[in-house]
Amino acid sequence: MSGARTTYMRAEIAEQPEALRATIGALLPRTDEAAALARGTRQVLLIARGTSDNAAVYGSYLIQARAGRLATLAAPSIATAYRSRMDLSGVLAVALSQSGRTEEIVQTLAWARDCGARALAITNGAGSPLEQAAEVAFVTQAGTERAVPATKTFTTQLAALAVLAIALGADVDPGELRGVPDEIEALLARPTDTEPLVSELAADDGVVVSGRGLAYAAALELALKLTEACYLHAIGLSYADLLHGPIAVVDRRTPAILLAADSGPTLDGTVDLARRVTGAGARAYGIGGGDRLAAACTRALPGPRLPEWLAPMGLIVPGQLLTEALARKLGLDPDRPRGLSKVTQTA
Amino acid sequence: MSGARTTYMRAEIAEQPEALRATIGALLPRTDEAAALARGTRQVLLIARGTSDNAAVYGSYLIQARAGRLATLAAPSIATAYRSRMDLSGVLAVALSQSGRTEEIVQTLAWARDCGARALAITNGAGSPLEQAAEVAFVTQAGTERAVPATKTFTTQLAALAVLAIALGADVDPGELRGVPDEIEALLARPTDTEPLVSELAADDGVVVSGRGLAYAAALELALKLTEACYLHAIGLSYADLLHGPIAVVDRRTPAILLAADSGPTLDGTVDLARRVTGAGARAYGIGGGDRLAAACTRALPGPRLPEWLAPMGLIVPGQLLTEALARKLGLDPDRPRGLSKVTQTA
Repeated sequence: MSGARTTYMRAEIAEQPEALRATIGALLPRTDEAAALARGTRQVLLIARGTSDNAAVYGSYLIQARAGRLATLAAPSIATAYRSRMDLSGVLAVALSQSGRTEEIVQTLAWARDCGARALAITNGAGSPLEQAAEVAFVTQAGTERAVPATKTFTTQLAALAVLAIALGADVDPGELRGVPDEIEALLARPTDTEPLVSELAADDGVVVSGRGLAYAAALELALKLTEACYLHAIGLSYADLLHGPIAVVDRRTPAILLAADSGPTLDGTVDLARRVTGAGARAYGIGGGDRLAAACTRALPGPRLPEWLAPMGLIVPGQLLTEALARKLGLDPDRPRGLSKVTQTA
Repeated sequence: MSGARTTYMRAEIAEQPEALRATIGALLPRTDEAAALARGTRQVLLIARGTSDNAAVYGSYLIQARAGRLATLAAPSIATAYRSRMDLSGVLAVALSQSGRTEEIVQTLAWARDCGARALAITNGAGSPLEQAAEVAFVTQAGTERAVPATKTFTTQLAALAVLAIALGADVDPGELRGVPDEIEALLARPTDTEPLVSELAADDGVVVSGRGLAYAAALELALKLTEACYLHAIGLSYADLLHGPIAVVDRRTPAILLAADSGPTLDGTVDLARRVTGAGARAYGIGGGDRLAAACTRALPGPRLPEWLAPMGLIVPGQLLTEALARKLGLDPDRPRGLSKVTQTA
């Protein structure tokens, strides 16, 4: 039984409540510092790659939907390959890198600062070059992560971005953020039977993973996890982009995994999408979305009981468990995907 | 022989030189009008979905790399689902929709204008709601497109974005843009033998399509074409994001298609990536990138002889030919993928 061995990935999934508690405890008292840095800026520019880029998508939606300011994603090659110059005054640049040692991200933050932006870093790498390149650094408290697929470094990045949104005046209740670690602990304690879903996915070559609005970030991250740890062709797409073409790929051999919070303005559309997928004869697997999404799906994994703005931190957890179990089922080591290392250097 | 029938898609690929000639002829004299609209703005916010979103990626890179101003992508659900309010003064909003009738895009442009942005539309739909919602409309001259997978409506969108970049002061030679239709005509006239590549891809379930910088837009668009017309699990990724995880999926059964211009700051990285892919025992297929990329790849299709800033308009063409031939090889009708219609409505 491969289940007998505990992988680093499985252990690190379980460490998330503690990592989140420590991160929220360290960062929530620092909203004034981030607010002071943001004073005089009107918008946010997020700089990231890979898993950190998926976290950045969460930050982008959260800041735009709840803090009422433009927050979009940078293209690092504009800085590093094209060495373009532009006026970034009025911009709060936010760079995310778990290690804080991805040179491309460090260079792009330094470039943004040279162009007139204020510079904030979100990193798990205390003392890292990224921390040093920023004016304010939010250091997440995830501890050492040994599995190559990021888990607790991702969810703590989301927590740091939630703190940033609060600092930027988001119309949210910070007390709800403090409740996230307990709810993820409760989610991990509730039985989540991934086995039927794992068995079916093990026979598939590809899968589409979709979500809309804030949940889109969790969908992108699950697609990345399945691709890197299970070598599954997982296409992560927003609900709307999926309907603009890739819906054609969903069929008997290619299911869709759909993620949604239990409430919020994108739940209805996700339930409709599940019905469209099953109506086309394909499998729809739900994560979260409460009873309504579960009822519209072929199979469903329960999500967290969290308000929509915080749901992505919990929605990714069943996806992490699924990824880890599927990798083992396929005879792969989830801790060490081929071709990858913990710090990715791109120039 | 399926080759005996000419599909709409194949015919429309061949119509691109004429469509581009008409579009460039109509829009290049209008740079002053776009420049006047952009006066007082400092940045560009692109609004699009699906194929138009891939065109928007080209616009984003081109404007940032060559016109020295921030140009990023909007998340339409912020307007349509979250109904967020924000200050967009100083922003030139550019909405792209081939039909001009995708409500989500029309609504998002109207929202941006309400928030204080100036509003430009790029559409092939003369008289469409999107044209009416804009202050200035660049109407592309692609004519009627009958195949569901967009070809000439995509490349003419790129031409319209090149005109916009010129209007925004890009350090480029407009005369080079005028030369694009002739070069694409020449590219289509040169023999491009897609057959060996088609035969190999027909046995694959998935493929990774990658490019960096400006070529990234063409990579995303080719991935979308292969997904919608061939039901292939095609993952479109930037060179850098590919190295942050999904490189794990590239193996004996999952090749990488790599696109690059013949010159420019991202060519070296693309050649290195091709070597890394073949070094891992996987197939790398090159499109463009001159002799250097071809030499590093398992197979290669020649790209256009265009400067880097215009290369995406030609780089997608061998990819369109490949998609159309692969769909037929697989017994599919490239003109009518299942589950799709020409105008996509998302709310």
